[in-house]
Amino acid sequence: MKSHMYSEIHEQPEVLANILDEEWGRVLSAARILRNRGFRFAMLAARGTSDNAALYAKYLFEVLLGIPTALASPSTFTLYEGRMNLDEVLVIGISQSGESKDILETVSRTRELGASTLAITNNEESSLARAAEIHFYLHAGKEQSVAATKTYTAQLLLLYLLVAALQEEELGADVRRLPDQARSVLAEGRWENTARYRYAEHLVVSSRGYNFATAKEAALKLMEATYVVAQGFSAADLMHGPIAMIGRDFPVVTVVPPGKARPGAKDLVEELADRGADLVVIAEDQAVVDKGAAGFRVPVSCPEELSPILYALPAQLLAHDLALLKGLNPDAPRGLSKVTETW
Amino acid sequence: MKSHMYSEIHEQPEVLANILDEEWGRVLSAARILRNRGFRFAMLAARGTSDNAALYAKYLFEVLLGIPTALASPSTFTLYEGRMNLDEVLVIGISQSGESKDILETVSRTRELGASTLAITNNEESSLARAAEIHFYLHAGKEQSVAATKTYTAQLLLLYLLVAALQEEELGADVRRLPDQARSVLAEGRWENTARYRYAEHLVVSSRGYNFATAKEAALKLMEATYVVAQGFSAADLMHGPIAMIGRDFPVVTVVPPGKARPGAKDLVEELADRGADLVVIAEDQAVVDKGAAGFRVPVSCPEELSPILYALPAQLLAHDLALLKGLNPDAPRGLSKVTETW
Repeated sequence: MKSHMYSEIHEQPEVLANILDEEWGRVLSAARILRNRGFRFAMLAARGTSDNAALYAKYLFEVLLGIPTALASPSTFTLYEGRMNLDEVLVIGISQSGESKDILETVSRTRELGASTLAITNNEESSLARAAEIHFYLHAGKEQSVAATKTYTAQLLLLYLLVAALQEEELGADVRRLPDQARSVLAEGRWENTARYRYAEHLVVSSRGYNFATAKEAALKLMEATYVVAQGFSAADLMHGPIAMIGRDFPVVTVVPPGKARPGAKDLVEELADRGADLVVIAEDQAVVDKGAAGFRVPVSCPEELSPILYALPAQLLAHDLALLKGLNPDAPRGLSKVTETW
Repeated sequence: MKSHMYSEIHEQPEVLANILDEEWGRVLSAARILRNRGFRFAMLAARGTSDNAALYAKYLFEVLLGIPTALASPSTFTLYEGRMNLDEVLVIGISQSGESKDILETVSRTRELGASTLAITNNEESSLARAAEIHFYLHAGKEQSVAATKTYTAQLLLLYLLVAALQEEELGADVRRLPDQARSVLAEGRWENTARYRYAEHLVVSSRGYNFATAKEAALKLMEATYVVAQGFSAADLMHGPIAMIGRDFPVVTVVPPGKARPGAKDLVEELADRGADLVVIAEDQAVVDKGAAGFRVPVSCPEELSPILYALPAQLLAHDLALLKGLNPDAPRGLSKVTETW
């Protein structure tokens, strides 16, 4: 029997299509409200997988909208009772379940402090959906795997749509192509030579820019599903210290995105190869994939700012496949439940 | 012969005293300028150890000043040429050498975009010191160890002083006591039972709130000096996924701070003990330290918001001692140099 994680990875093309069909109108109206009201700063509140979606949004907001954007530290509100003037600030709370208590409290408090508030969840009736002024629905169906996959890419797409709606009010061909492209990645792409990581106990994942989020999310999926000690770094952060631990045969997954981050990510592949690292490469260009001991060629082209949606898929598949290789059930990570209550 | 890292760890009481004696006046004048000009949002740009100091500052600014604060993604400026309206934004660039190219470019660009700019470096003549409107000097003397120690706590203190100057213009007794307290921690505190980690290949470090920075910095020192695969998490982030990898005998360093974060951090110690983790505890309370297989009792009391300055010391000593236990030279991490050039 296939695992829930496997099934849900393969539901992603349909979920992306649902969002384009059913949520774009709501995103457009929300963007009109937010534009009329105006905001100069954004703050994203999330944990775990949703926090990696927030990291993607930070790049989108800063690069495409020119809005300085912070990732919230929920404890500022939940533990230290921080008081801020949040006039002209947009706060976005992201939670699959919509029931993360610290995210709920962050959104409720920041709304009281004057922020415009938006929630993104997979449950229209959730506490978080009701606490924010605006709600975007993930249209992902029930997520049964503890390791989130389809709700992650759904979050990325909704965050992208919000930015698109704030910019132009128009849905470009590149975005409309995403469900089909996701289908191609899942149908045509495949991992080669991953059995060698059967006994790997630690891994580093690295990328740049928009796909820093992909590196962090890949590391999180690997920790959850395989218990491998995995860390996600931006290429620059990796060079500032952690690179010391990368010796001969240390496994490093590098995500080589399209666009402006590509040259730096390719340099990183060379640098790591020189150190004798065992390289796992996710890239569009077969010649780059071939530099790794294992790899996944992404069989489609897309703009860099959309690539985290498609490049997440091989990362999820890697975590899933490695869990099976290690004899683990990817649906039941030790010590995790679907709604995590933190304080 | 003692290593540079060992000597520099022990120079910290003197560096902290130098800053209080020689930099407070400059901090006060800067605070007056910034207060007159006004700022509603802060952005910190840094890499590596300095980025952990920035994380500490995020809590200080948000909790004590009520200023929403972002950690900058330098690639927004260096790679994507982001354009933002940075009116009413304070940008702080932190770099020991003052020569990190991406931090320099971030500060220069944000200054052009209208931000007030402040640099914190250990070189008054550095490019970063000259690029910002205001410069704070670390007074740390030359740092020869590649793994930064004394410049880290110096950065924390200067960031705290800035916040104190923006609030009250007065230097409290708690701050003036820090150099002596740091001396006590180094003279009276000691690690017990760390030889058991001679062969550890991975570690997690966790704490909460202000000391999330301590957890991240401890992990970075461990990676740099011992090549152990170490990750720093806030307690809440750890529960959202990564906890799955923590099974029996997995070594976890928990930093139990004073103040509001203490109850949650103590709960975390219990939770990890229940999972059979091998616990390393840094705490003031001997009963909490005794819950670990190894531990360090901090022999002084201080307010929570100052504790990251003192709690960094046992973390640095742990990395240093573990490097020696593993037969490594802590001054010469493989593949690192003192100035890291990232792009």
